[in-house]
Amino acid sequence: MPARARCEAHRRAHQPRQPQHDPLDDREDRGRGPLGGVARHRDPSRLAGHGPVSIEGPYDEAFCVPGLLEEIAQAEVEGFDGHVIACFDDPGLDAARQIARAPVVGIAEAAMHTACLLAGSFTIVTTLARSVATLEHLVHRYGFERRCRRVRAAEFPVLALEEPGSGARERLRAEIARALEEDRCEAILLGCVGMADLARALSGEFGLPVIDGVAAATELVEALFGLGLSTSKIGGWAPPLAKPYSGTFARFAPR
Amino acid sequence: MPARARCEAHRRAHQPRQPQHDPLDDREDRGRGPLGGVARHRDPSRLAGHGPVSIEGPYDEAFCVPGLLEEIAQAEVEGFDGHVIACFDDPGLDAARQIARAPVVGIAEAAMHTACLLAGSFTIVTTLARSVATLEHLVHRYGFERRCRRVRAAEFPVLALEEPGSGARERLRAEIARALEEDRCEAILLGCVGMADLARALSGEFGLPVIDGVAAATELVEALFGLGLSTSKIGGWAPPLAKPYSGTFARFAPR
Amino acid sequence: MPARARCEAHRRAHQPRQPQHDPLDDREDRGRGPLGGVARHRDPSRLAGHGPVSIEGPYDEAFCVPGLLEEIAQAEVEGFDGHVIACFDDPGLDAARQIARAPVVGIAEAAMHTACLLAGSFTIVTTLARSVATLEHLVHRYGFERRCRRVRAAEFPVLALEEPGSGARERLRAEIARALEEDRCEAILLGCVGMADLARALSGEFGLPVIDGVAAATELVEALFGLGLSTSKIGGWAPPLAKPYSGTFARFAPR
Amino acid sequence: MPARARCEAHRRAHQPRQPQHDPLDDREDRGRGPLGGVARHRDPSRLAGHGPVSIEGPYDEAFCVPGLLEEIAQAEVEGFDGHVIACFDDPGLDAARQIARAPVVGIAEAAMHTACLLAGSFTIVTTLARSVATLEHLVHRYGFERRCRRVRAAEFPVLALEEPGSGARERLRAEIARALEEDRCEAILLGCVGMADLARALSGEFGLPVIDGVAAATELVEALFGLGLSTSKIGGWAPPLAKPYSGTFARFAPR
Amino acid sequence: MPARARCEAHRRAHQPRQPQHDPLDDREDRGRGPLGGVARHRDPSRLAGHGPVSIEGPYDEAFCVPGLLEEIAQAEVEGFDGHVIACFDDPGLDAARQIARAPVVGIAEAAMHTACLLAGSFTIVTTLARSVATLEHLVHRYGFERRCRRVRAAEFPVLALEEPGSGARERLRAEIARALEEDRCEAILLGCVGMADLARALSGEFGLPVIDGVAAATELVEALFGLGLSTSKIGGWAPPLAKPYSGTFARFAPR
Amino acid sequence: MPARARCEAHRRAHQPRQPQHDPLDDREDRGRGPLGGVARHRDPSRLAGHGPVSIEGPYDEAFCVPGLLEEIAQAEVEGFDGHVIACFDDPGLDAARQIARAPVVGIAEAAMHTACLLAGSFTIVTTLARSVATLEHLVHRYGFERRCRRVRAAEFPVLALEEPGSGARERLRAEIARALEEDRCEAILLGCVGMADLARALSGEFGLPVIDGVAAATELVEALFGLGLSTSKIGGWAPPLAKPYSGTFARFAPR
Repeated sequence: MPARARCEAHRRAHQPRQPQHDPLDDREDRGRGPLGGVARHRDPSRLAGHGPVSIEGPYDEAFCVPGLLEEIAQAEVEGFDGHVIACFDDPGLDAARQIARAPVVGIAEAAMHTACLLAGSFTIVTTLARSVATLEHLVHRYGFERRCRRVRAAEFPVLALEEPGSGARERLRAEIARALEEDRCEAILLGCVGMADLARALSGEFGLPVIDGVAAATELVEALFGLGLSTSKIGGWAPPLAKPYSGTFARFAPR
Repeated sequence: MPARARCEAHRRAHQPRQPQHDPLDDREDRGRGPLGGVARHRDPSRLAGHGPVSIEGPYDEAFCVPGLLEEIAQAEVEGFDGHVIACFDDPGLDAARQIARAPVVGIAEAAMHTACLLAGSFTIVTTLARSVATLEHLVHRYGFERRCRRVRAAEFPVLALEEPGSGARERLRAEIARALEEDRCEAILLGCVGMADLARALSGEFGLPVIDGVAAATELVEALFGLGLSTSKIGGWAPPLAKPYSGTFARFAPR
Repeated sequence: MPARARCEAHRRAHQPRQPQHDPLDDREDRGRGPLGGVARHRDPSRLAGHGPVSIEGPYDEAFCVPGLLEEIAQAEVEGFDGHVIACFDDPGLDAARQIARAPVVGIAEAAMHTACLLAGSFTIVTTLARSVATLEHLVHRYGFERRCRRVRAAEFPVLALEEPGSGARERLRAEIARALEEDRCEAILLGCVGMADLARALSGEFGLPVIDGVAAATELVEALFGLGLSTSKIGGWAPPLAKPYSGTFARFAPR
Repeated sequence: MPARARCEAHRRAHQPRQPQHDPLDDREDRGRGPLGGVARHRDPSRLAGHGPVSIEGPYDEAFCVPGLLEEIAQAEVEGFDGHVIACFDDPGLDAARQIARAPVVGIAEAAMHTACLLAGSFTIVTTLARSVATLEHLVHRYGFERRCRRVRAAEFPVLALEEPGSGARERLRAEIARALEEDRCEAILLGCVGMADLARALSGEFGLPVIDGVAAATELVEALFGLGLSTSKIGGWAPPLAKPYSGTFARFAPR
Repeated sequence: MPARARCEAHRRAHQPRQPQHDPLDDREDRGRGPLGGVARHRDPSRLAGHGPVSIEGPYDEAFCVPGLLEEIAQAEVEGFDGHVIACFDDPGLDAARQIARAPVVGIAEAAMHTACLLAGSFTIVTTLARSVATLEHLVHRYGFERRCRRVRAAEFPVLALEEPGSGARERLRAEIARALEEDRCEAILLGCVGMADLARALSGEFGLPVIDGVAAATELVEALFGLGLSTSKIGGWAPPLAKPYSGTFARFAPR
Repeated sequence: MPARARCEAHRRAHQPRQPQHDPLDDREDRGRGPLGGVARHRDPSRLAGHGPVSIEGPYDEAFCVPGLLEEIAQAEVEGFDGHVIACFDDPGLDAARQIARAPVVGIAEAAMHTACLLAGSFTIVTTLARSVATLEHLVHRYGFERRCRRVRAAEFPVLALEEPGSGARERLRAEIARALEEDRCEAILLGCVGMADLARALSGEFGLPVIDGVAAATELVEALFGLGLSTSKIGGWAPPLAKPYSGTFARFAPR
């Protein structure tokens, strides 16, 4: 790797119920500008100004993708060299790969590929039961059904992780403990952006790899950048054909 | 994928508990208008007024789904008893199932389920090579990889089917003939809305089932309606959780 | 498997090329008699007069198939336009498709295809543990292993469902409740003809689709009929080659 | 499938608990007669006196199974210690396992298991194209889809193998040669009883294992016998439950 | 895995072209010595004089394979007609097949193939939890994932089986009992050489096939020998190409 | 497989907690020597002084693994922070993961994981036909069978790539061209270390990602290092149990 960061992650997060949080902080702190070679985290809740404050199923996903694609198109203009889709449903991944020159990696796929290099099997722990079906679908889509023992829900709202006394961390730990005993898994994937900060501590506590998808995806984008490779454009991810779009989306029409 | 109008909601309704209803009316009226209890095809290019004029890949798909979901929500209000997503990529299927009270069927899944009841194996013939990856992904997602011999592209723009002298019908026939010889398939699926009218003629010509997804989906929606069943709401298709959406999509926020 | 009557041919017909036919008759007459153009349920224990009184495994199945095929051949002569094999083992399905002009649907396959349009996953609840292996085999044969969470046996004789005080309905409910909790399934398939009448009530009680295969197969046969399609005859379901049969079965020899 | 005699029971026996038994007798007597402790091949066309003269698809299969089961029941009474179902469709295998005390092996499964011990991959060569679907189904049922490269039909009637000047052997050789080149297979399975005698010569000629299912199944039955093991009776192959059978099949009712 | 002696070559031979050979000798002499035409078990811990005293994972396996291959090469020189790799990890199987003229069978693959002829499903019971991953990998490699319900560890050192009062046999029985109840399996495979002597007694006790891989592999090698077939040499198991080896292994260089 | 030296350990290290370390140095020093914090490629033919000069199948592989493990153990002592197994058969991967503190990545798995992030499907092009079976096995083992279209052999000895006038590069290009046309793949994996230098040029020439496993594995090891994660030690890759090894391998006995 070069000395300077050159594989910026274009990533998003939610923190939906914290309107007082200043998105600009996020931008200033992590990605100081459009300079080549600098990673950054966009304000997760913005989605180019339109979309759901959080992603909790296919309906939310449908309305987050246009904004996500707008963000990615903008980051391409600014010269970023890689994109991370920082939602564990990997929304918009195929469409993003159609329009990006730079590699695009989803955090769910990143976590699963990483797990396979470190463990014979893994279990995913997410927050809500309603997310299990979506994640099982991704496991199957990416071909990891033999490595994934189970997708589990710890059943607490993600923001509770940051609330003292909410018991959320205890529930997460309890679910991981259950996974170790019942699933005989060799690694844990944190199936939610909000759990990311806990990965290192939990790895130590439980004595096995606990993987945060955002960090994994950022590393994998850098790896792809280091290889000088980008998305294949000769098949399903070929650039969109030029055509008119009507109404609200007219400005997104491929040229 | 057709060159025009692809992702409309094709819906139909019965008013089942009205035995005085004349089924023949139902057939005649199919596609006519927005009256309750009558099937209809919306103008495919409208998508509630915003979206691409045709669906030719994931990027187009991303921008057709919001309009599609708006159409479906509107049809629910009008009392339709079933929804057909009349684009062979089955866009927005999961999200539509979250918000609809009535059953929702995609035309690709419909064509594949139908084929399995009529043939030991099938080949899908679509228009453009770039659509093959998307359709292979659907085949896999729905679990039909053992029944689907191959996804083929006849390589012509869909509108050419309607242009005399374009040679498009000849290419389609030639591709079906190749499929019969090379794939040893027992049925053909027309992987495109624009080919629908040809299904019956081609079935006769080639002596095997040639399946049009729109007709298949319409029949399957009626079958589900006849059973009095609708989408399960206890897992991945549970209704969206209430939350704010920002900007353009604020009015779509789940309540 | 039911304790009685399992492998009858449940067939229905439309006389499609007679536009003056009144569809309402068709509905009213369903199940009434052997008249052309009318659906009917044969006495399930007859099997053309020879065979087991119930189907509870491959040995019973072997001796039900000749009678089943005789029934289907007879119904073809009478002009029926579709056949339902009303035993959840789908016995004789391939052979029936070889000899029938009209579409043939088994109730297990029908229930599974239907479930996939309504739910992300399903569990099958049958009566006896010995039937589980057969049903698991069908799940695999049809390619639904990713959708089927489990095949369960409620462990009671099917006739007990009709006996007050037998506790059978309670056991069935208890097994469904266990399936919901342990399997995280989104739909239930009643793996037995004898449970059919309970489907609607159980759907309401448990708040998810509870699917009866006989109703599902009847609807799917109608859907195929509506599409004007029948079984592909160019592969594994080609008509039997002419040859002599000896002894008991001489009269069944293909001509 | 052979044009003649396909679905016989090919059985052999040892009298295992008689240590004074001379194994050489066993080998010499193989195929000789119906004496206990001696292997034999029944006249394949008899099927206890009723059934098709050959098995060429599911319909023929349906009418061969009752006679096959009668033969197996009779052989059990005579004290045979193993059964080979000598038709490459493996008809009646599950039902036979329900009623036999001794192990039962089908020649298709035997050929496939044997091939896996000798080669990384195999191709099956059968006679008629209409048999391909059935054999593909068996490959899938037994779980050998990753080892089986392809099921091919040489397209000649089996009896032609014995007719000088028919060109059948040349066609078989040509199909094997095509399999070696196009399928990159490492073994050939002769998907038909009538080809059995050719296996050894073809193995030498083509320089790879060419496997005859009848010989393979006979060896595997002996292996199971040598292990002192028989079919598990605690699941799908439990003995049939007692119940009445009506009409023609009354005498086959399980007791 | 056993605590001692695991990866020996268990080989047997017949001298097939000597009809005066007495098969009974073969049985009596089984395991006695290195004479041609006689089966034998080498001292499992020898491995041609170098290697681990037991095989308990991939690292041990890596250091047992050179000695195992040396043993097999020597047995080929001595005229043995078949080889059994008597360690349930099937170490060195591919390499052994490259260098042996006679067929080679691993005891894990042998046990699984045998189980499939006797039962619809099976569970493997091994000694230590650390062996589970290796065995799951073999199940998958051989394509038996649909037949194998689970790989279980009884968690005791194999030598304890021979120590009175160790409680090991009780633990093994308890694990088998759990497998029967929880896995709904129809056969048990003893995933360890040290358990071999118990197979017959456990089969009787639990009323289902309990399979010892060493016996199964020996029978299968005899079956292959009886068929006159050996390993295909045209693909992945072609003889090694001539080349120099350096250092310790110079004498093993293929010529 | 290359004609020379293939199974060396290609390792690199970072000394991560030294922020003053300059990554650019790292690049310059890559391959230079055994200093901590510097990546290196060992002389591929050494294998700690014993083993085959090239790896062309399982037999060669068996004799390369002890030397490979010795190299890895030595590199651990020297403080390297990651290991690349630079042979496209990924030999000794499981054993290496048992003994290494630092992450271990094989170049075949690395190339496949990388391809999945860049392309919907890929084809592997190796040198000799005999390597195809081994690579197909790896594709299956890692779960990439749906992404891998085909494993192809260009059929030339690897050293020919470096010989002017050998025609090897032309054959490689021709095979890639065939893959693009016949396999409809979206990326190419160079299944051989000797082809590595060509990857970048071929990517440009053919307009799709052409992936070299050595570079891919090096990047992935760095990514794992960057995440602060190493191999899970609680399952199949737990450290070897202490026990004596005899003869040649005594010094490798786990302690």
